[in-house]
Amino acid sequence: MSVVVSGLQRAYDEVRQHSLALAEPLSAEDQGVQSMPDASPTKWHLAHTTWFFETVVLKPHAPGYRPFDERYAYLFNSYYEALGPRHARPQRGLLTRPSLDDVHAYRRHVDEAVAALIAKADADTLASVEPLVTLGLHHEQQHQELIVTDMLHAFSCNPLRPAYRPGSSHGSDKRHEAASSAPARAQALEWLRHDGGVVGIGHDGDGFCFDNECPRHEYLLRPYEIAHRLATCGEYAAFIEDGGYERPELWLSDGWAAIRREGWNAPIYWSREGDAPDGNWQVFGLTGLQALDPDAPVSNLSFYEAAAYAEWAGARLPTEFEWEAAFDAPGIEQMTGHVWQWTRSSYDPYPGFRPLAGVAAEYNGKFMVGQQVLRGGSIATPPGHTRPTYRNFFPPAARWQFTGVRLVRDL
Amino acid sequence: MSVVVSGLQRAYDEVRQHSLALAEPLSAEDQGVQSMPDASPTKWHLAHTTWFFETVVLKPHAPGYRPFDERYAYLFNSYYEALGPRHARPQRGLLTRPSLDDVHAYRRHVDEAVAALIAKADADTLASVEPLVTLGLHHEQQHQELIVTDMLHAFSCNPLRPAYRPGSSHGSDKRHEAASSAPARAQALEWLRHDGGVVGIGHDGDGFCFDNECPRHEYLLRPYEIAHRLATCGEYAAFIEDGGYERPELWLSDGWAAIRREGWNAPIYWSREGDAPDGNWQVFGLTGLQALDPDAPVSNLSFYEAAAYAEWAGARLPTEFEWEAAFDAPGIEQMTGHVWQWTRSSYDPYPGFRPLAGVAAEYNGKFMVGQQVLRGGSIATPPGHTRPTYRNFFPPAARWQFTGVRLVRDL
Amino acid sequence: MSVVVSGLQRAYDEVRQHSLALAEPLSAEDQGVQSMPDASPTKWHLAHTTWFFETVVLKPHAPGYRPFDERYAYLFNSYYEALGPRHARPQRGLLTRPSLDDVHAYRRHVDEAVAALIAKADADTLASVEPLVTLGLHHEQQHQELIVTDMLHAFSCNPLRPAYRPGSSHGSDKRHEAASSAPARAQALEWLRHDGGVVGIGHDGDGFCFDNECPRHEYLLRPYEIAHRLATCGEYAAFIEDGGYERPELWLSDGWAAIRREGWNAPIYWSREGDAPDGNWQVFGLTGLQALDPDAPVSNLSFYEAAAYAEWAGARLPTEFEWEAAFDAPGIEQMTGHVWQWTRSSYDPYPGFRPLAGVAAEYNGKFMVGQQVLRGGSIATPPGHTRPTYRNFFPPAARWQFTGVRLVRDL
Amino acid sequence: MSVVVSGLQRAYDEVRQHSLALAEPLSAEDQGVQSMPDASPTKWHLAHTTWFFETVVLKPHAPGYRPFDERYAYLFNSYYEALGPRHARPQRGLLTRPSLDDVHAYRRHVDEAVAALIAKADADTLASVEPLVTLGLHHEQQHQELIVTDMLHAFSCNPLRPAYRPGSSHGSDKRHEAASSAPARAQALEWLRHDGGVVGIGHDGDGFCFDNECPRHEYLLRPYEIAHRLATCGEYAAFIEDGGYERPELWLSDGWAAIRREGWNAPIYWSREGDAPDGNWQVFGLTGLQALDPDAPVSNLSFYEAAAYAEWAGARLPTEFEWEAAFDAPGIEQMTGHVWQWTRSSYDPYPGFRPLAGVAAEYNGKFMVGQQVLRGGSIATPPGHTRPTYRNFFPPAARWQFTGVRLVRDL
Repeated sequence: MSVVVSGLQRAYDEVRQHSLALAEPLSAEDQGVQSMPDASPTKWHLAHTTWFFETVVLKPHAPGYRPFDERYAYLFNSYYEALGPRHARPQRGLLTRPSLDDVHAYRRHVDEAVAALIAKADADTLASVEPLVTLGLHHEQQHQELIVTDMLHAFSCNPLRPAYRPGSSHGSDKRHEAASSAPARAQALEWLRHDGGVVGIGHDGDGFCFDNECPRHEYLLRPYEIAHRLATCGEYAAFIEDGGYERPELWLSDGWAAIRREGWNAPIYWSREGDAPDGNWQVFGLTGLQALDPDAPVSNLSFYEAAAYAEWAGARLPTEFEWEAAFDAPGIEQMTGHVWQWTRSSYDPYPGFRPLAGVAAEYNGKFMVGQQVLRGGSIATPPGHTRPTYRNFFPPAARWQFTGVRLVRDL
Repeated sequence: MSVVVSGLQRAYDEVRQHSLALAEPLSAEDQGVQSMPDASPTKWHLAHTTWFFETVVLKPHAPGYRPFDERYAYLFNSYYEALGPRHARPQRGLLTRPSLDDVHAYRRHVDEAVAALIAKADADTLASVEPLVTLGLHHEQQHQELIVTDMLHAFSCNPLRPAYRPGSSHGSDKRHEAASSAPARAQALEWLRHDGGVVGIGHDGDGFCFDNECPRHEYLLRPYEIAHRLATCGEYAAFIEDGGYERPELWLSDGWAAIRREGWNAPIYWSREGDAPDGNWQVFGLTGLQALDPDAPVSNLSFYEAAAYAEWAGARLPTEFEWEAAFDAPGIEQMTGHVWQWTRSSYDPYPGFRPLAGVAAEYNGKFMVGQQVLRGGSIATPPGHTRPTYRNFFPPAARWQFTGVRLVRDL
Repeated sequence: MSVVVSGLQRAYDEVRQHSLALAEPLSAEDQGVQSMPDASPTKWHLAHTTWFFETVVLKPHAPGYRPFDERYAYLFNSYYEALGPRHARPQRGLLTRPSLDDVHAYRRHVDEAVAALIAKADADTLASVEPLVTLGLHHEQQHQELIVTDMLHAFSCNPLRPAYRPGSSHGSDKRHEAASSAPARAQALEWLRHDGGVVGIGHDGDGFCFDNECPRHEYLLRPYEIAHRLATCGEYAAFIEDGGYERPELWLSDGWAAIRREGWNAPIYWSREGDAPDGNWQVFGLTGLQALDPDAPVSNLSFYEAAAYAEWAGARLPTEFEWEAAFDAPGIEQMTGHVWQWTRSSYDPYPGFRPLAGVAAEYNGKFMVGQQVLRGGSIATPPGHTRPTYRNFFPPAARWQFTGVRLVRDL
Repeated sequence: MSVVVSGLQRAYDEVRQHSLALAEPLSAEDQGVQSMPDASPTKWHLAHTTWFFETVVLKPHAPGYRPFDERYAYLFNSYYEALGPRHARPQRGLLTRPSLDDVHAYRRHVDEAVAALIAKADADTLASVEPLVTLGLHHEQQHQELIVTDMLHAFSCNPLRPAYRPGSSHGSDKRHEAASSAPARAQALEWLRHDGGVVGIGHDGDGFCFDNECPRHEYLLRPYEIAHRLATCGEYAAFIEDGGYERPELWLSDGWAAIRREGWNAPIYWSREGDAPDGNWQVFGLTGLQALDPDAPVSNLSFYEAAAYAEWAGARLPTEFEWEAAFDAPGIEQMTGHVWQWTRSSYDPYPGFRPLAGVAAEYNGKFMVGQQVLRGGSIATPPGHTRPTYRNFFPPAARWQFTGVRLVRDL
């Protein structure tokens, strides 16, 4: 039992500390900003993840727990209808109070109560609490990724183009270094064949997973071949050069409407040097504005752009089943750690899917319409968070995440 | 060959005549109105379907064909990017000119040219033309359904609540009579079991189908049971009575947001007698405003409402695969001719799907994102138009179509 | 008394007949269209003006009057809060029923009842009724102008560019002919001096006027000089040529924002021949699309455009007081019958203004904020409708009326 | 000369210091927030006013001046078209960089340069510079008022309802104390008579004024009587109690549309205790949420609400001319220091008005449409800023300023 306890506490400490580390390069002013309704302030992420532990773990399971501030339940609930009313999402950036210092104190208050709960828990309590704490940690990791992507978006709206991580080579995030110091030249694209047939899809029950990865079930695939690596910035630039954003036959109807309406003619963070029509491409990222690296995986695409690129390339996007079945294919690379990969699968429930009980019922199932599944994991995904069966999802127009393309072809 | 010719010409005449019959109860004023961007005026439907024959059949295949009016190409193109620019969709109701008489003359001009083309065609020409004419007829049938549903919506916006078909029992549409004179009492719901396993899905190549029904492929189903009939108005009224529109736990997140934002608290054409909070339900339909018939299939639901109802009923919506596999199940009823049935399947391409070549490439594939599949057919679907493999699709918030619910449960 | 009676009846007949004459070139389809929320269908104008007589004259004063259709009160009230709820303004174009024939029958029904009321009225009744009938006639004349301007806007939205009055020289409206056959060449602009001082402003009580023209009062003017004629299309084209729509220093802040937001770069009905950037100017009007006449008064300007033009011309717009004081100045021309003339006066109440009693209270006063005063009268103003003291008003962005510019300078 | 210099420098120091004092109760987080497009962050106000001195005084007049940061010209220009492009107004809240510390450094940099310029200026330079510095100080005072009103609005959006000045009685602003410790009971309303006739309006040239107060000119008034004090919260509560927000006949048409559309049923900062329909009124203000003081002047009204209240009270709003003519009337009170007072005058140019030359041309004139004049001054107006001839202006729907009502009646 003490092994479970110490492991749980260690995991808790690591994840909680990682959130603070991500916020460390940011001022209190930075941490309060919300650049669009889909994004949230860093301070809000820090508080909301704390509220989750308070609400799901402490209030039901820690006798005598005294909330840090009763009003925070209203401020820091995100979308849980069962947990009462909440502050309007587009107004999270208006919460200059509580201050960042208050939020730090809130985190400490909850951290101490969780530690005390874990330390004193008997076997029964631990059996109830451990899955909830674990869920809370995976939940916090999801918000860690959002801290990075939301802040990048906010900085992209600032004409000064501030860098989240000013020097490119001394980040605290080792995995990112690995990614960014990856092969100087992208390899020639190879196609890996899969013969199709019945494959097992979904989580097999070993270790943590979200409810949307279950139940594991059989799925019948047709033969296909899959790209051994991600599409690159250089390849995407060739798509643009070839009139990609001007040719309606390459686009889904909603995608064409979106790029016309929004005036999109390149990925969200791409710009031309000096704003000249033929200036060299520059890409805004965590290290600021940099010259485009043609060998780096293309990132921050919407589903619409990913699908149009695939059409132009004479290929298509993989279904999530094809992607999962190819995860361990010999020779396959960049399946995680670079960009989330758009799939041609709508975010539908697996056959036999049932939401978790209790508050976690609202975690996944209620979002299963109007979104596309992404697979893999990005430079902003925290270590240990993702899995081959992990189903990320975003609306097809979303492009502020680190999202890219892997191609597939029918055989 | 002459059999083909005479059969094709007969089919052409029947379909074209049916459009005019549907418009017959409507004045020229009625036929010009557009009540929302998603709907179109009857006059526009009559002209657009004609433009389709002119553009796809006559211009490429009838030597010396002289267009009725060159400007109509701009006015009556719907969404075909490959066929040039077009009048903005939300402004179709502003086209008081050409007049309805002009549109009738346009139809005659094209009908004569098509008849002449068919009559004189040699074998090669006929081989090219026959599939295009057939496509044009199925296309026109789709617009026939829209003539009815769009007009019903326009009349629903008129405080006088005009009836498309004033007396309820003397319509020209036999199938509708059949539907409306159906069993006075809905039968007790029975559940029909399906054992799952590999089933064939999609069109088998015999007769006409749209590209989105292909290729036929195998699909692996889990066991389930399906309702032998549609959900009724009485059952849906019980859902409302039980607070259905007030309980977020029953709704998909986008659905809950939609009903809050739009103020929906009943199906689009339901109202309370005298606008009293506890007045009896009335339903606006093709015969005007009528007392709710508790045994009639519930209709004009959005996907969100259909899914919430199913959740409340302790069941779920069928996938399109489950629906298709159950089409011929012994004891199953109301699979077509009443309402289109929302499925829990997003409108994704079948494995191996390729769009048709040429202009028809824009027919289906480019809409495959953000929509839900519906199966079956409604009281407004023209005779002979639908099939068991037919995939209709609409966005999840659409509710001006005749759309309802059939339940399914896991086993 | 019989003179009053016969005069009133004759005036009634003339005005009511003129409305039908204006609608005569239009089909039933044309008469049902509403091209924007600010405009109304011709059919609606024909019915609303009839409703006004029914509501204000017949219901209170004609014993035993039976309304044509009780539901019309809801359909054809425009904005009179005191007269109950009404159909939403932007949805007037959806009223395909009642039909145009029904509306004609409605007009005849009311016309007969009014005639009977006038014929049988005793002196007391006539004293009550005569001012209301007269108000109704002036009200109908206002809608006669709107029939023309609203229809022109609807036709301008139709790519076929239909002409309201196809041949330019056989209109039924004599005044318009006079206007359009006016001096072939505009005269050199002359400035007419006014010495300022105390002038009388507003209606002096002789004959009909609206409440907003009262009370007549004294106003203190500074010396100014006023253009003897209107600004011409040729002069306005020179403003455009000189970068008028690209120079923010010429514009009011709201005006600059409006032209940027809306993409305006010329008056609403101007276009370039062949849509070429340097094509000759064409102007869409009642006779269809015509080459720009450089000597014709410029028309269909917003207040913002009028004010920017005046700034560019080194002058300004007149206040409504300056305009009224110059009405009879020797040598002044084009004060009415061509375009309404934007003034630099906001539409504020005159000192001592009190709205009329009863329903007419809502006629003018409640609109006295956010609008600009226009003076004069246009080619669409019915004969005998306007006066030197007449205060027309529209929001500063409105440009679908026949609205132009007369310049003024300080001395 | 040295007297001018020392006076100018002292004025500069006082005004600049007052801005910092106003920001002093606010954290860096608070100072970054923008709660609506019409409001700006405190930090932005601090920087923009500094940019004004840099751009208008230093760049043209201080040889060798080196801008603090060239990029700030883009970030901190507000609306001056002549001074180049600028950051979009609704996005001012996204500027987490430059930091508040950077903005403080920017202020010091400019303050030192201005001081050096003044100290070393010869007579000619001083003659050029002094009016510009003075303009800059009055400009900064306008933004001081906005710092307070914008922050109050931001705090009103925060469910925690933070107080700008937590204890009610220890503010640094003496005038505010005076105002809030004003007469415990409002006096019975008295009407002060004015006989009308020709009065002088506008600034007489003695001391600083804005261009919109000129030229001084004669205006002819009719007799009227004016309330000796402002309308109170208690009187306004009676208006609400009497159905004020439910009676269309009291409202201007645009006002009625606004309150329906926005759901307004009380002044912006009024709420009911416990959100109960009959709870006692509470008012959110600089000291937080307080019980309504029936004797305090009603504040934070839109023009629409002010006009409806006046109509209900059997009176009307004064014209700006009536207000100015009554400024020194014996017995009149609360003409400044409490709330800005809406007038029934649109913000039109005075006869003979010409904008200032140079950059200041954009200061007032270009806003002269679609706004209403306010007179007086509020608790947030800095000491010495306003004058009897001062013309403040806001759109009629604005209600986040300290704006109230003084009544007038015709005689």
